[in-house]
Formats: sequence, structure tokens, C-alpha cells
Amino acid sequence: MNNDEVMRFRVRYGETDRMGTYYYARALEWFEAARTEWTRAKGLTYAEMERRGVMLPVVVSHVEHKRRADYDDLLSASCAASMPGRARVRFDVTISDAESGAVIAEGYTVHALMDSSGRAIKPPDWFVEFMREAAG
Amino acid sequence: MNNDEVMRFRVRYGETDRMGTYYYARALEWFEAARTEWTRAKGLTYAEMERRGVMLPVVVSHVEHKRRADYDDLLSASCAASMPGRARVRFDVTISDAESGAVIAEGYTVHALMDSSGRAIKPPDWFVEFMREAAG
Amino acid sequence: MNNDEVMRFRVRYGETDRMGTYYYARALEWFEAARTEWTRAKGLTYAEMERRGVMLPVVVSHVEHKRRADYDDLLSASCAASMPGRARVRFDVTISDAESGAVIAEGYTVHALMDSSGRAIKPPDWFVEFMREAAG
Amino acid sequence: MNNDEVMRFRVRYGETDRMGTYYYARALEWFEAARTEWTRAKGLTYAEMERRGVMLPVVVSHVEHKRRADYDDLLSASCAASMPGRARVRFDVTISDAESGAVIAEGYTVHALMDSSGRAIKPPDWFVEFMREAAG
Repeated sequence: MNNDEVMRFRVRYGETDRMGTYYYARALEWFEAARTEWTRAKGLTYAEMERRGVMLPVVVSHVEHKRRADYDDLLSASCAASMPGRARVRFDVTISDAESGAVIAEGYTVHALMDSSGRAIKPPDWFVEFMREAAG
Repeated sequence: MNNDEVMRFRVRYGETDRMGTYYYARALEWFEAARTEWTRAKGLTYAEMERRGVMLPVVVSHVEHKRRADYDDLLSASCAASMPGRARVRFDVTISDAESGAVIAEGYTVHALMDSSGRAIKPPDWFVEFMREAAG
Repeated sequence: MNNDEVMRFRVRYGETDRMGTYYYARALEWFEAARTEWTRAKGLTYAEMERRGVMLPVVVSHVEHKRRADYDDLLSASCAASMPGRARVRFDVTISDAESGAVIAEGYTVHALMDSSGRAIKPPDWFVEFMREAAG
Repeated sequence: MNNDEVMRFRVRYGETDRMGTYYYARALEWFEAARTEWTRAKGLTYAEMERRGVMLPVVVSHVEHKRRADYDDLLSASCAASMPGRARVRFDVTISDAESGAVIAEGYTVHALMDSSGRAIKPPDWFVEFMREAAG
């Protein structure tokens, strides 16, 4: 399992709340963007996966919020992926302060595999192969 | 054109920002909920409209932000609808403080009519009739 | 630990995503609203807690997504609270379909206690008392 | 008034809705990020402005939604600023498809000037000077 920086981004004003830090649910949007960029970095896109009929709905999400991050702070996301079972994908994401490296939030999401009609599926061969090479 | 209260709701924590008031984009989510409740109050639902093949994508949105509203404030939304053209629907929404009646935000959205494949359509008869009775 | 319905609400259009179900991060906004309503139902408000100088930033959030919920579906939230340690509060939330009772999402958040300057604090007596009575 | 590209970004999954395009309120988050990047490109940051005691709450927002944009589409934002009155700032933003250049959404926001206690203020000299040079 490798762990790569997949993107840098700034906290948007609308992502803060009256406590003066990012609103906790927003971390899951950053996790999603990190998964998207991880997939692209590995040579495929999640949009293309969906066009091929594989959707990855989230079944579990878990975040540990470690530090505050305020408007306009420059953050970094790293991401790693694995298949903890025949029909499950897991992404581990860490959001850090891009300058100090201090961890802001870390956690994971577990995903089922579903076709475009919403039925659970076993992963097609191309998917398993992609994951083996990408997550290796 | 009548103008009715269609819902009451409280500002969510995640709808505030570091300025200690609601984040401006969130007003458009409240506008959307107000349109939804207006349609239901008039005897139809927007979900049912979509099932019948009429979608109402927003083509213009305009909001005037008049006053602050903070976390947990109880707000009220009123809504009125009209057809400013053969293939346009307009909703006027006012968000007020539920206790004082002071206006928090007001504005409108203009909507095109589209079928489920994304093509512009003329409104079917049932739609025109609904709007005539509901907006009357 | 008791588990009460604290609110009913409808899925907003903006809470759905292109998969045609609620976007997963939005469940955490519902959790937040459920905590807010639980606190109010127990005779205090979270807004009042903050005015008294006790803030409850989220340190862990965990959600299991069980079923789809689409635009305009009527959902129900139930909530229970506990203090798993001297300086931690935990809220367990279940989001269900209001008609069938089927669970849509369930999980919990763990909160630290912080004063308004962002420093970790021990809970004041009134807070411990409130939690003892409310969560009892 | 000049009009520059200030950022490129991809549509997040959570920014789409069940219609398969970006949810309209999200355009205002992109507008906000565009204003942030415009200010930085001109040699100041909005975060710094707030530290100096000038806040720019939105008093009017107006968006014309021209075309769909789906998940993972690469978009471009351009931004221009002006002072339409002694105590008002206006930002005009255009969101385009980064490849074709087709306009996705365009509009403007008008901002009041406020100090950190929420009182309306006249712009300090440094602010007027910054705007004159930056917007020139």
C-alpha cells in the first residue's frame, strides 16, 4: 500500500463554520476529491469507471479530526487504496497542512461495487487488475 | 400572484461560516426547499413533475442578502410562482426571521423546462394548468 | 441510553448527487441537525451552550450508509448521547425512512470540549449535570 | 476593468445533483474561490483583508446558468472587480469549460464593507488604493 500526495487545495470560505475552522462534513468532500485524483494519477478516472458501469457508493465513512484548518489555508491530501474483500474497495485519506505537514484529518471510506441500475456486482476483471497495479 | 409561508426551518451549524452568519450560497438551498414546499402545498410535488418528464433547471438565480442569520435561528420561507414566458417558470422567495418577520434574504430563480434527456420543451398542458391554478 | 426521534425532514435536491441518492457527506449535516434537536428536546440548546463558553468540536465521525434516499424522501432522525470519558461527548444518530422505518444511515460523532478561545476544557458542573439528566 | 483567468478546478462529485449537472448553489462557491484567487493574484489575500479589519459580506448575488457541467469536468474561472460606489465592491465572475471555453455560468456579487464587529464602514485608504491598482 503506497501513500501519495494527490492534490493541494485551499480551504474555501464556505467550508468554514462559525467556530472558525472547516465544517467537519466538508472533510468528506476533500476525501472524495482525493479519491478522484488518486484514480487519475493511477491512469484511469472514476468518471470513466462509471461510464464502464462500475459505481462505488460509500458504505462506511470514518474521519478523525486532528487539527483546525481555517479559510485559505493550503492543504495537501494523500490517498491509498486497497481491496479488503472481493467486492469492497477502501480508500485511506490524510489531509495535512501543506506547509507544516501537520495532520488536519485522516480516515477512510469503504465502498461497495454497484452497476448503473443500482445492483451489487462482483468487480469485473479490468477493475481488479487496475486495483492490483494501482494499489500494489 | 400570492405569497405564502411554505416552511419554517432552523439555520444549521454547517450553513454558517467564519463570519458568524449563514454562508451566502446556502440561501439558494433554502430557496430550493421553498420551491419544493410551495409545489407540495399546491397539490403536486416537484418529484412527481420529474417522474412525468418535466425538469426545471435553474437558468437565473438572484439573491439580495438583507440581514445576518446565525446558527439555530428560526427562519420562515414564503414563495410565489409565475410563468414569465411560455417556457419559463419563475419563483420569488423571501426568507424571514420567523419571530420578528425581518427579511433575511429575498430573490428569485428563473427555470427552463427540460425533458429527462435534457432537451428544452414546451410545457405540457397539465403543467400549464397546474401553474395557472397554483400561481393564480 | 435512550434513543428518541428528534426530527423529520426531507432530502433536499442539493443533497442528492448524480448517483441519484443523497451525497454521503450530507449525512453528517443531518447528524448535526439531529444533535441540535436532541439538545433542544432535553431543555437546553447547543447555541446556549456555546454562549456559556462550551464548544463541542467533532473529533471523530463515523457513518454506515445502509440504503439510498432520494430527493424529497421523508426521513426521520433519532439521537442518543453519552459521555464516554470525562472530557468527551458522543452522539449516536440513526437516519431512517420515516414511513418504512428502514435505516438509511447510522453512526456516531465524538466531541471534545473546548472553550471559546479554542482550549480543551473539563466540562463545567452544569454541563455534566445536563448530560446526566438528558442522557440518563 | 480587466478579466483574467484566476483558477482551474474540477467539478466535485458532491457538487453534482440527481439531474447530472452541478447543483446551482455550488456556482456561488466557485465564485467565492474565484474572488479569493483574484485577490491573491493582485498581491493581497482576502484573509489578510479580514485580519486588517475589512470584511466584504455579499449583499447581492446573481448567476446566469448557461450550460451543464458534470462531475470531473475541468472548469476555468475568470474574475474582474470594481467599486460601483464608495462603499461597495463588485466582482464579475465567469465559469467556463477549460477546454472548449464555453461559458458554464456567469454573474456577479456585490459586497458591502464591514468591520469585524459587523458595522458598515467606509473603505480605508489602503483598500481604495489596492482596488484602484488591482481593478484598474
